[in-house]
Amino acid sequence: MYSLKLVLKISGHLLSPKAGALDVCYIKELVKALKQLVKERHRLIVVTGGGETAREYIRAGEKLGLTEYHKDRIGISVSRLHALVLAFSLPGSLKHIPHSVEELERYVKANKVIVVGGFEPGQSTTTVAVLCAEAVNADKLIIATNVDGIYTSDPRRDPSARLLEKVHVDELERILTLSQLAGTYPLFDRLSLSILKRSRIRTIVVNGKPPENILKAVQGVKVGSEIVFKSRCNN
Amino acid sequence: MYSLKLVLKISGHLLSPKAGALDVCYIKELVKALKQLVKERHRLIVVTGGGETAREYIRAGEKLGLTEYHKDRIGISVSRLHALVLAFSLPGSLKHIPHSVEELERYVKANKVIVVGGFEPGQSTTTVAVLCAEAVNADKLIIATNVDGIYTSDPRRDPSARLLEKVHVDELERILTLSQLAGTYPLFDRLSLSILKRSRIRTIVVNGKPPENILKAVQGVKVGSEIVFKSRCNN
Amino acid sequence: MYSLKLVLKISGHLLSPKAGALDVCYIKELVKALKQLVKERHRLIVVTGGGETAREYIRAGEKLGLTEYHKDRIGISVSRLHALVLAFSLPGSLKHIPHSVEELERYVKANKVIVVGGFEPGQSTTTVAVLCAEAVNADKLIIATNVDGIYTSDPRRDPSARLLEKVHVDELERILTLSQLAGTYPLFDRLSLSILKRSRIRTIVVNGKPPENILKAVQGVKVGSEIVFKSRCNN
Amino acid sequence: MYSLKLVLKISGHLLSPKAGALDVCYIKELVKALKQLVKERHRLIVVTGGGETAREYIRAGEKLGLTEYHKDRIGISVSRLHALVLAFSLPGSLKHIPHSVEELERYVKANKVIVVGGFEPGQSTTTVAVLCAEAVNADKLIIATNVDGIYTSDPRRDPSARLLEKVHVDELERILTLSQLAGTYPLFDRLSLSILKRSRIRTIVVNGKPPENILKAVQGVKVGSEIVFKSRCNN
Amino acid sequence: MYSLKLVLKISGHLLSPKAGALDVCYIKELVKALKQLVKERHRLIVVTGGGETAREYIRAGEKLGLTEYHKDRIGISVSRLHALVLAFSLPGSLKHIPHSVEELERYVKANKVIVVGGFEPGQSTTTVAVLCAEAVNADKLIIATNVDGIYTSDPRRDPSARLLEKVHVDELERILTLSQLAGTYPLFDRLSLSILKRSRIRTIVVNGKPPENILKAVQGVKVGSEIVFKSRCNN
Amino acid sequence: MYSLKLVLKISGHLLSPKAGALDVCYIKELVKALKQLVKERHRLIVVTGGGETAREYIRAGEKLGLTEYHKDRIGISVSRLHALVLAFSLPGSLKHIPHSVEELERYVKANKVIVVGGFEPGQSTTTVAVLCAEAVNADKLIIATNVDGIYTSDPRRDPSARLLEKVHVDELERILTLSQLAGTYPLFDRLSLSILKRSRIRTIVVNGKPPENILKAVQGVKVGSEIVFKSRCNN
Repeated sequence: MYSLKLVLKISGHLLSPKAGALDVCYIKELVKALKQLVKERHRLIVVTGGGETAREYIRAGEKLGLTEYHKDRIGISVSRLHALVLAFSLPGSLKHIPHSVEELERYVKANKVIVVGGFEPGQSTTTVAVLCAEAVNADKLIIATNVDGIYTSDPRRDPSARLLEKVHVDELERILTLSQLAGTYPLFDRLSLSILKRSRIRTIVVNGKPPENILKAVQGVKVGSEIVFKSRCNN
Repeated sequence: MYSLKLVLKISGHLLSPKAGALDVCYIKELVKALKQLVKERHRLIVVTGGGETAREYIRAGEKLGLTEYHKDRIGISVSRLHALVLAFSLPGSLKHIPHSVEELERYVKANKVIVVGGFEPGQSTTTVAVLCAEAVNADKLIIATNVDGIYTSDPRRDPSARLLEKVHVDELERILTLSQLAGTYPLFDRLSLSILKRSRIRTIVVNGKPPENILKAVQGVKVGSEIVFKSRCNN
Repeated sequence: MYSLKLVLKISGHLLSPKAGALDVCYIKELVKALKQLVKERHRLIVVTGGGETAREYIRAGEKLGLTEYHKDRIGISVSRLHALVLAFSLPGSLKHIPHSVEELERYVKANKVIVVGGFEPGQSTTTVAVLCAEAVNADKLIIATNVDGIYTSDPRRDPSARLLEKVHVDELERILTLSQLAGTYPLFDRLSLSILKRSRIRTIVVNGKPPENILKAVQGVKVGSEIVFKSRCNN
Repeated sequence: MYSLKLVLKISGHLLSPKAGALDVCYIKELVKALKQLVKERHRLIVVTGGGETAREYIRAGEKLGLTEYHKDRIGISVSRLHALVLAFSLPGSLKHIPHSVEELERYVKANKVIVVGGFEPGQSTTTVAVLCAEAVNADKLIIATNVDGIYTSDPRRDPSARLLEKVHVDELERILTLSQLAGTYPLFDRLSLSILKRSRIRTIVVNGKPPENILKAVQGVKVGSEIVFKSRCNN
Repeated sequence: MYSLKLVLKISGHLLSPKAGALDVCYIKELVKALKQLVKERHRLIVVTGGGETAREYIRAGEKLGLTEYHKDRIGISVSRLHALVLAFSLPGSLKHIPHSVEELERYVKANKVIVVGGFEPGQSTTTVAVLCAEAVNADKLIIATNVDGIYTSDPRRDPSARLLEKVHVDELERILTLSQLAGTYPLFDRLSLSILKRSRIRTIVVNGKPPENILKAVQGVKVGSEIVFKSRCNN
Repeated sequence: MYSLKLVLKISGHLLSPKAGALDVCYIKELVKALKQLVKERHRLIVVTGGGETAREYIRAGEKLGLTEYHKDRIGISVSRLHALVLAFSLPGSLKHIPHSVEELERYVKANKVIVVGGFEPGQSTTTVAVLCAEAVNADKLIIATNVDGIYTSDPRRDPSARLLEKVHVDELERILTLSQLAGTYPLFDRLSLSILKRSRIRTIVVNGKPPENILKAVQGVKVGSEIVFKSRCNN
């Protein structure tokens, strides 16, 4: 199998499921899976979220009277802390965390494995992942989260909810609008979705637990949900 | 009158109405108005768009087969060129163009007048302006564009369209959704609107021509359309 | 009273006494005290520690097999997160956290209030504070920690331990050597002490709780322990 | 054929022959030629000029009362925009444009293809190209312009003007002094010539149209004019 | 007297008249004069040369087989070392040495006293001084060197050489061409002269010894040689 | 033999044994040895000291009344000048000198040979070397100095002093404490020793003259003194 350009988003919940704590066992397994991808000579950009530590620090920021903007910057700072932990755990990766997609581009040619956290206030780490994927023209974008993929509706409320193996990007937009009404945390915000639509990057949403799901998604083995796009010019 | 923190967005069309050209007469008048604001000791962040030069270079990028992401970066590069022209024309301004809101924050304390262009692909310069306003907790955000303000519908198509002196942010969202269906260029994209909603920055949309409108908006004289927010705690 | 150049080190324990959590009440009071110092037109450099969140992330790093060097960098990253929280809470401060004393010097002339975390692996935040004090030729260095000052021996073990109002730097060195044998966490590491000795910066160790102690130390009111130096040329 | 270190200067007129426009057809052919050089494993630094877009923006700057220095900086900004367009069109190139020769040196080891625009006011992009060639100790410097090479006199005025296959650097200096008197735009300014003289880099001036001329110059096929130097120590 | 924007070039020979050594007595007097200028609220950019230490290190580079380009970079590095010494000796100055005129512009608004060394290979520190003067639109440029001003011919060879109180820039160019033939070290290289010509900055060449000459040149007292320009529009 | 990650500290005395001068013959031989290591495909970080030029400039700084901190920064600046000379003499090395260990990490993946000088005031270049070794997890750290290794006591004072082939780190600490009492210049300061202890990097102290000693130390041939550590967990 030839080498791919991959962007992986690792949900912050998977890394820091409790405020102030890291899930060391999970990270060890994740690192093992990522090492496997490096061994297979894929190029990796990994995007980490802030998880519960971020959420707790943001809550403290709220009590301190910080603006939404500054709370976002604190969340970004925690996501970069997680990026650092992952970069240090992953041999061969760049031990510096780029702060913007423009800065990422300075390192991407000369470094096969780069880890980043958030980039800018008002922007989810999913948007960061989609931007990175677009910037390097990634072969695949894998969103590793704590659910099994994209459902027809919220599985925690609707027993008839069904996991979608493939979901058209327009259908996904419709589902997100509905689930947002239901107050659940969305997998994709509007900005990430609109960048995805224009770039048509092959995207797979998987449960990051166990990390083997990530390997499956890379290998093209059926797992999670794949986002599909309208064909261009009947191709 | 005491000094304010102001963010002004100057639409690219006003600066570069024709590919490869600048509207020198307009820029001279604009600089005169901005000098007036500096004289009144306001702190300014000015955000410039790329206008027709950006559009033409993006079209060339399209023909060269560039990705959406890289075309966005070209547009950003032109908007920064316009920021440079304006910064050089405006005595006392920082003669360096920050590339991100994080970089902006390094200079904002020590420089009373800063000009920026775009920040990141996938993001309008209106979003840049809203981010800057949020970052410095601006007293007012003024969007100087080439229409007189926000209309109930597209005035170019609907003779009954009416300019709104005040428009609630939710109503604005509804109007933008409709006008977008009609294919017109939106004043606000969704991201800028969602940041605006959370930060509740006082925002006025004016016709940047003549630049006196900007001065009026600063002074609180009735001009253009003001975006209003739900009251917090009945205040 | 005329304005001073002050460096304040705020122990991480005071900011984050529990992993993943900030002591919001304490930080509010601290910010109130710091605002008072800003109002009195003093110039401030504040150095924040990583506290329990840092300790917990370092422990996770240990389990992930990271080197001492990388664990230090994680601790530095948390201390910078705390610097960001404090900078955002403190109006008028630089909203950017310098990463080295060389970078600090770029901002120090144009910004009256700067907050930093750690600088370099193998170095305590006390050393950072002493370096900053030396770099700007500070009038006073205040070390705000969670004990009342410097004792003749460890007060938690020795009931006859006595708080020293003034302690000669050589005596301090002797006490630290002994208490280090007893395994307690030292207020000063050797590097910070040796820089202090050469620069003879007026240094006061206070209990950062309540933050009024910091104000007292600035005003010259008797509080905590002052480190004194051999007189130069009988002065 | 073994790989070479090459510096290519592409005249701005070739890229932007009309204000606000790019010559897309030419750039496509150029990219094809450059890809060929990359395929042959040469290392490339490409320097782009600002062309007519730069000239038009500088004229606007003139009308806005900008200083010569600031007009130069606007020209540099346009040349960097062209560098960006070329970098984005050229797979495998660094997607960041260094702003000085010192910054270039940070990337040159790890990136085989780098594109730059101007560096500093008061300096032509030809000087930039000669500096880059000197910095990396280039095997060849190719100046791609819109004339066929160096003539004995200005061919547009003097029907007896003759293209020189080889021209000694001192002879070139004499010709430039004369042609400058005649008011024509010089291929080389004095600074670029004096750096060239001291470094004795093999330099070939070709018509960049068609880009095959660049390939010929690399391969050592006779094309345009070659600048020759005095032998050192009779070698 | 109102405050001026001043650029002062201090010849490296004045600072380091012997390889590896600084003229401490001279620097002390110079600092005293510069403090006087700061006290009078002038804004200063000081440009330092590399002097004999630079020359000695460049000779070593020659023996090590370094290119002209790399020898220039070594000379620049020494000139920046001298800039650091002067910045550290001068209270209130920026303690960071900008490496390019673009970087200088980031600091110039917020720092009243900045010291720089060289910028780029192939460029004298006189050119650096002229560029800085142009960038900030300096009121006066003072070139402090080790001769009393500009002579009609080389005073060390021609007993009839006469110091010129005022010299037209074209006349200066003629003298330099002649003196260069005579092998003497030129006060101005061609690039600095051509930038000077276009910007018409008021320039005075003085003997930097004693530094009171610099104060005289600032105050408009007759000293050294002033370079004069053709009048624009009969003014 | 497979490739190693090596950190080499070259004492400043070896490079600049006289103020303002470089030992060109020594540097030539050193470069020859380093080229040999590059040819054997080892990865190198070389740390250079400031030597006598640094010492002389620091003495001048003393006379100018500079603080210890600023004198340290001048010494660092000279050590970086020496790093530049060595980098320029060594083909294939990065031609940029990182200023901190964090900056080093940006380049270390993409550049096989990097030269640095000092990092921070209050820190010896030996500490810099130990930090670099820790950061890249070096296989060997070689300290090239002007003595033959570590002695039981100061050989210049004690005729019974004996060179130690192997010395335990605790024994080394004891010797340094004693020799420091005797006022001699220590090979290791406390900070470098404490980082060494925690990281247990294989360290060999050799006489850098002739540079063949460095090659021997790399190859494992007996030369100088090796520092040995307590076994961890009986392994």
